[in-house]
Amino acid sequence: MSTSIRISELATRFGAVLHGDDVLVARVASLESAGPDALSFLANPRFKSLLETSQAGVIAVRAADAAGLQRPHVVAKDPYLFYALAAQQLYPRRQVNPGVHPSACIDPAANVSEAAEIGPNVVVGAGAVIDAGCVVMANSYVGAHVELGRDVLLHPGVTLMDGCVIGDRVVIHPGAVLGSDGFGNAWAGDHWEKIPQVGRVLIGDDVEIGSCTTIDRGALEDTIIGQGARIDNLIQIAHNVEIGAHTALAGCVGIAGSTKIGARCQIGGAAMISGHLEICDGAVVLGGTLVAKSIREPGAYGGPYPMQAHSDWVKNAAQLRHLGELAQRVRQLEKNMASLKAAAGDEE
Amino acid sequence: MSTSIRISELATRFGAVLHGDDVLVARVASLESAGPDALSFLANPRFKSLLETSQAGVIAVRAADAAGLQRPHVVAKDPYLFYALAAQQLYPRRQVNPGVHPSACIDPAANVSEAAEIGPNVVVGAGAVIDAGCVVMANSYVGAHVELGRDVLLHPGVTLMDGCVIGDRVVIHPGAVLGSDGFGNAWAGDHWEKIPQVGRVLIGDDVEIGSCTTIDRGALEDTIIGQGARIDNLIQIAHNVEIGAHTALAGCVGIAGSTKIGARCQIGGAAMISGHLEICDGAVVLGGTLVAKSIREPGAYGGPYPMQAHSDWVKNAAQLRHLGELAQRVRQLEKNMASLKAAAGDEE
Amino acid sequence: MSTSIRISELATRFGAVLHGDDVLVARVASLESAGPDALSFLANPRFKSLLETSQAGVIAVRAADAAGLQRPHVVAKDPYLFYALAAQQLYPRRQVNPGVHPSACIDPAANVSEAAEIGPNVVVGAGAVIDAGCVVMANSYVGAHVELGRDVLLHPGVTLMDGCVIGDRVVIHPGAVLGSDGFGNAWAGDHWEKIPQVGRVLIGDDVEIGSCTTIDRGALEDTIIGQGARIDNLIQIAHNVEIGAHTALAGCVGIAGSTKIGARCQIGGAAMISGHLEICDGAVVLGGTLVAKSIREPGAYGGPYPMQAHSDWVKNAAQLRHLGELAQRVRQLEKNMASLKAAAGDEE
Repeated sequence: MSTSIRISELATRFGAVLHGDDVLVARVASLESAGPDALSFLANPRFKSLLETSQAGVIAVRAADAAGLQRPHVVAKDPYLFYALAAQQLYPRRQVNPGVHPSACIDPAANVSEAAEIGPNVVVGAGAVIDAGCVVMANSYVGAHVELGRDVLLHPGVTLMDGCVIGDRVVIHPGAVLGSDGFGNAWAGDHWEKIPQVGRVLIGDDVEIGSCTTIDRGALEDTIIGQGARIDNLIQIAHNVEIGAHTALAGCVGIAGSTKIGARCQIGGAAMISGHLEICDGAVVLGGTLVAKSIREPGAYGGPYPMQAHSDWVKNAAQLRHLGELAQRVRQLEKNMASLKAAAGDEE
Repeated sequence: MSTSIRISELATRFGAVLHGDDVLVARVASLESAGPDALSFLANPRFKSLLETSQAGVIAVRAADAAGLQRPHVVAKDPYLFYALAAQQLYPRRQVNPGVHPSACIDPAANVSEAAEIGPNVVVGAGAVIDAGCVVMANSYVGAHVELGRDVLLHPGVTLMDGCVIGDRVVIHPGAVLGSDGFGNAWAGDHWEKIPQVGRVLIGDDVEIGSCTTIDRGALEDTIIGQGARIDNLIQIAHNVEIGAHTALAGCVGIAGSTKIGARCQIGGAAMISGHLEICDGAVVLGGTLVAKSIREPGAYGGPYPMQAHSDWVKNAAQLRHLGELAQRVRQLEKNMASLKAAAGDEE
Repeated sequence: MSTSIRISELATRFGAVLHGDDVLVARVASLESAGPDALSFLANPRFKSLLETSQAGVIAVRAADAAGLQRPHVVAKDPYLFYALAAQQLYPRRQVNPGVHPSACIDPAANVSEAAEIGPNVVVGAGAVIDAGCVVMANSYVGAHVELGRDVLLHPGVTLMDGCVIGDRVVIHPGAVLGSDGFGNAWAGDHWEKIPQVGRVLIGDDVEIGSCTTIDRGALEDTIIGQGARIDNLIQIAHNVEIGAHTALAGCVGIAGSTKIGARCQIGGAAMISGHLEICDGAVVLGGTLVAKSIREPGAYGGPYPMQAHSDWVKNAAQLRHLGELAQRVRQLEKNMASLKAAAGDEE
């Protein structure tokens, strides 16, 4: 799947400076496992000792780590970013093979570009628009009136319900579901009445969405994912959520209805965010945190209960149930202490 | 997708009283975005100021909020419920188009009603029964001996393993899996032996199940979801769980094996419920709570650790690990204080 | 689906001793619901009273629980394990029906054993190898160069992306996704650059993987699941994770990138494990625990915040935010107390 490129070409292209031989690189690899045809990188100075022992053909390093390095290397401002960009060249997305697989079911009222590739068993509904460069892989479902921009990649088994609008170059991984109904129910005294969900899901350009992630359509307005957002696996995004541009959500995050998350936020794995909140641009939420109120200032927020050996935890958890009472007792002690000290002072 | 209806007709039908012109409504919308063809509603008095500025054709309000309102409005006991019921009329489920898509694979020993609609690439196993009014959308799998009641809607990519029994009017969203094996393993000294899972999954009438939710078959007895329950996305329901009628589970909830949840409970998002518990009718569990013991009394239960700025959390989390010890120190202080006060009393 | 076997045959085969009539058993059932054709078992002595009232044809018990038991029973060292093994005989995996369903799309460059069964709408990519005894059920996707060992069972709707290597006798439940891209992004100043994920997913022999579980391919090296591991539903396993042999993960667990979990661990439901950690062999993590540091010693670890009635929780949660301060106040009280006691001592 990979191709071969001269490191000089990659260095020039991505603003790095080559020192030493112009190696032909065919792959990327970690410092430990790299062979002579591989580009590797040092992002964390902690692993600097590996620079000498690695079998890598060439290594991307920061200037600060390059002093005295004899082997071929490239000096980059951000070696991790250089590695990302180089790897994109070495492992290009496979070419589009335009055409519709004979087993696909395309509604006659759908508009599929001749420059798009539609895989086996794909189903495309009436009014759907699939632009040039799109690849819709096997067993995916593109509902009625869905719009896919240019160069969208739907991996196998993706489901896009009616009316989803997907920007250019979006990548959606297997099993993801976009546009299913939001969880809207009104209590009718003895049962729930379903509230029809009539909003859409709008996905900005360059968004990536992970496997088995679910993004519900809006109840009245739309659910919106901003340009360049990165959304990992098994994430639940409820109706009317808005996520700002370039925000990243790690795996297993849940976001309840109508919450607005700003741009360039980072939400750690398994964080759970309540509904109707606002989280400002640039907020960082640590993994496992339950966010139950809005965040107005950028910065890091946390709060998972720390793990302990079970026997210790049992003791502490017992106290946790009586924390209000403990604080009350400390207040009482402070009062008594003040009285005693006052009395002692009187005696002096 | 929506139809147009006179508001007078909706008001009569759902027990509300029209004040002002008999507007023709074609859609529902929020107060902010509604136009003259839209029905909107005021559920939260906090937004009462929007009543005057909204462009909505007609607004559903409580009597208490209707005083002095000049524009067309309907007075309803519960405007949110009125909106739900009206929206169901304006956005009816699409009509069933009876018939089997030529790409579907129906076992000759299946019993599919002629009044059911079977979409592309659907697979139906031997002995399955699909009743009138059912819609089984693309790429869904209906295993052997599965029974679907009347008017069931399986969205695309739903998987029902062998023997599931689904009540009337049930709606299952994309990617949901019902009837996969429960997690049953016996330790055999140096490896796990699988315990065959021979129970079924029984889903009551009018249940709705969200995207990528998984409901395992029972180990020996059945896993049972009561009538009218509402189950959101990405929820795990383990083997032999029973969920009572009209109970609602929000997204990302997990319920471990053999737990019985009563009727009309509300389980908040990402709550995790341990196995072999009993939760009584009418319990409310707040989002993010870990339920590790049975709940015997109706009411609200919570317990997620509260979020803080990371720097504050670090300080508190450090103390959390020593809470048992802190309580011990407070007890010691109280003893010392009692001695000192006794001594001081002696002196007086 | 079940077959009938003499209990004497099962007892002999699995090292148990029959007492009483040689019953023909056709099923397994709980003590409460078993009929005369069922094998039941008593694993928990708490339910010993059911031994007399159960209608089961034969019951597996420990020697300690068998004293005085008149009805047919088998004495086994571990009745639960005996039941598991017996149930495997009574409910064998259905036979393989070799052949490829006409609706399946098999790449001409794939290598599918004639002794494998390929179901409807299955897609198999170029270079894929499917060995004898495999069953690939409906709507599953087997990507290019995937390798399935002998007797693998892919339930409906499983997605295996390119290059996954699956051991013998592996079972994968519906909707699971293996080999999708890991969550790798490098920040480029104003947007994320995707890091191509070029590792694979390697699954050992006898592993079982639950519904809608996602296992990402490695970034550079491989993601590895050891032999005999048991992985429940809706679990996220990130890139470069390694899981040791016979480790069991309960539902809704998340494991962040590059974490290594040892052999024979048990990870409770909804536990969340941060990235780049090491968890030693034999660790037990309780359900709902957030593991944010490595575990070096076997044993049980926990830490979910305990549930309370909401009104109590509100009081305690308020104190939690000030725990560092509370500890500080207790230290101050201890100092004051020491001074007072010293002064009191001086007086004596």
